[in-house]
Amino acid sequence: MALIVQKYGGTSVGNPERILNVARRVIATRDAGNRVVVVVSAMSGVTDSLIKLAKEVSPNPAEREMDVLLSTGEQTTIALTAMAINALGAKAVSLTGAQAGIITDEVHTKARISDLSPGQIHTALEGGNIVIVAGFQGETSDGEITTLGRGGSDLTAIAIAAAIKADLCQIFTDVDGVYTCDPRLVPTARKIEEICYDEMLEMASSGSKVMQSRSVEFAKKFGVIFEVRSSFNQNPGTLVKEETQNMENVVVRGISVEKNQAKVTVTNVPDRPGTAAKIFTTLATTGIIIDMIVQNVSTAGTTDISFTLNRDELPKAQAALQGAIREIGAKELLAMDGIAKLSVVGIGMRSHSGVAAKLFEALSGAGINIQMISTSEIKTAVIIDETKIAEAANVVHEAFGLGAGA
Amino acid sequence: MALIVQKYGGTSVGNPERILNVARRVIATRDAGNRVVVVVSAMSGVTDSLIKLAKEVSPNPAEREMDVLLSTGEQTTIALTAMAINALGAKAVSLTGAQAGIITDEVHTKARISDLSPGQIHTALEGGNIVIVAGFQGETSDGEITTLGRGGSDLTAIAIAAAIKADLCQIFTDVDGVYTCDPRLVPTARKIEEICYDEMLEMASSGSKVMQSRSVEFAKKFGVIFEVRSSFNQNPGTLVKEETQNMENVVVRGISVEKNQAKVTVTNVPDRPGTAAKIFTTLATTGIIIDMIVQNVSTAGTTDISFTLNRDELPKAQAALQGAIREIGAKELLAMDGIAKLSVVGIGMRSHSGVAAKLFEALSGAGINIQMISTSEIKTAVIIDETKIAEAANVVHEAFGLGAGA
Repeated sequence: MALIVQKYGGTSVGNPERILNVARRVIATRDAGNRVVVVVSAMSGVTDSLIKLAKEVSPNPAEREMDVLLSTGEQTTIALTAMAINALGAKAVSLTGAQAGIITDEVHTKARISDLSPGQIHTALEGGNIVIVAGFQGETSDGEITTLGRGGSDLTAIAIAAAIKADLCQIFTDVDGVYTCDPRLVPTARKIEEICYDEMLEMASSGSKVMQSRSVEFAKKFGVIFEVRSSFNQNPGTLVKEETQNMENVVVRGISVEKNQAKVTVTNVPDRPGTAAKIFTTLATTGIIIDMIVQNVSTAGTTDISFTLNRDELPKAQAALQGAIREIGAKELLAMDGIAKLSVVGIGMRSHSGVAAKLFEALSGAGINIQMISTSEIKTAVIIDETKIAEAANVVHEAFGLGAGA
Repeated sequence: MALIVQKYGGTSVGNPERILNVARRVIATRDAGNRVVVVVSAMSGVTDSLIKLAKEVSPNPAEREMDVLLSTGEQTTIALTAMAINALGAKAVSLTGAQAGIITDEVHTKARISDLSPGQIHTALEGGNIVIVAGFQGETSDGEITTLGRGGSDLTAIAIAAAIKADLCQIFTDVDGVYTCDPRLVPTARKIEEICYDEMLEMASSGSKVMQSRSVEFAKKFGVIFEVRSSFNQNPGTLVKEETQNMENVVVRGISVEKNQAKVTVTNVPDRPGTAAKIFTTLATTGIIIDMIVQNVSTAGTTDISFTLNRDELPKAQAALQGAIREIGAKELLAMDGIAKLSVVGIGMRSHSGVAAKLFEALSGAGINIQMISTSEIKTAVIIDETKIAEAANVVHEAFGLGAGA
């Protein structure tokens, strides 16, 4: 008898009919001889409606009150899911985040889980219940309601799986799993059966937004094996786990693509300590998230520093940097959007050479110019013209033999 | 500096605009130099929507889960109300029923308050906050979410007023206060300035559904003075309090009317111990609520027992009684709907005679036949034909001099 944690996202519980479908799936898992803990999100659309209501009473609602408000979304779903399971003849009991023992820090709207005391989960399981837990929420040690921010329900599921030592954690979503590339861009993309945490992290941070990085990091830290799969069919999904010997034989696991990027270059930066720090501290204090940073060796005492960021943040970055540029004595700020990032990811890269060469060759063969390059141990990323991204993804996917039947 | 508890019902917080109106009213109370605790209900329509959702996943939802579900309604309102007050420049903090220290028994969907530990309310008040508490909800000593049933938010407000020793408790609703009779029936009806708990109880149990009896009983038990008034205007409302010498000078405080009644008569009931018990135990076990019960002296060893009940419950009562009637050897069951109850209420009746006579005379003068009579220390009630109820209310209202300018 296995102990399984299942998480269903907002689309999977989007209306009463879908909640009943989830209930059937949960009962089937139980009937197969397992004990089941289910984590659910707010029904799709509910969180947005609540945010809209908040904006109608306040231009800038207090984050503490946003948490009180938004946590009702998941609380509604746990009650309905427990009712649906009861209606179909199985025993279920719902628990809010607080009742499930999820203790967080005091950073409202993006709290971090600091402790998990699953006493009530165990008691409910021992009573023969399927246990339904509200995702995305917890409480501080003072009993204040908190929420975990984006991807919070995945995090709840993985944290519970770690705390109760579950045999498996299944993240049900509206996609079949993690693909070798976005199937909307690359028709030959296929589902990956197994991927290791580090690869999943690189895919997540490079635009494959199946899951937020923080949930994957949490799973890695506590060794929680999880499966990403669809709640709308019975297909097996993608298993995310510690790397195995076997995994290293695949050089490139997948390709991820991120559009809507922009790049900024600060030219003729005097080559002395503190200039780069000045630029990026300025950006950090305005809350702008930077992706790639590239600085080449200096010539003639100055260098150019480039970085990429989300296109929407470009005006804010330009405004923030005007003062810093004068202060450090750099020449000018060149900004450009209409670019995209393509990353090839795979732990096999550690032991295989020639990945970068093959990537550049494939792009060159298609006449696609590379504007920036950045590499990590298991990822090679390039910035190219956004209009070329679909073509680039297809030729690179093909070059690394990732297509169906490969 | 007074300490005031204000309660706003679902209509008063029915949309963001109305929540902002409530916020302004609360801030005005604070700016007048008071400390304020506000109890709010779910926005009107929200509870019904949640019940509808529940019915879509389960024909018979578990009461524990109904409480988890329904309590989200008030939680949504507290967050929005606190945000609205913040947006208008005052400090506010929201508390769920559990956070406010409302401990109940374990009877889900109609829990009773067993304890109230207002530590967090005091802390928040001392921090200079307006405190917004979710009505209708609490938690058991085991941390299970409970709701208080119909009129639960009024009960929350009065219980908090008692626990924090508030100077005044204001129940804001969509009517101006308690009237001498329903103004839709009696155009000359006027608002009552002061009424004592017992009169309010008799009015409530006789169809004047401004408040549920249990809240009035709770207020009486703990001596909480409360005012019923409208959230849509600035008119003073009706003050409900312990009776005073002065109050007794008014013989009749008001007239209440209850339509949609039915009466049942069991004829030729053998006059021996246990027969009445058999009839009403049978009804009680089926959950039917009985109002008036009339039994006259027996003649020839048998008597007739009559009772009234809500018309909707008549078929259930008839079905339930068939067996009992055979068992006790009564003759038959006569049932009739299309009747209504008119009650005159006033503590002055205790020391004034002639109330019943004046009532019967007024009805007789209008040619209205009395079918049943029931009296208590401060109430005289009659059952009449439902089609005559408006006329009856007007002539009785006039006979006791209750009209405007009286």
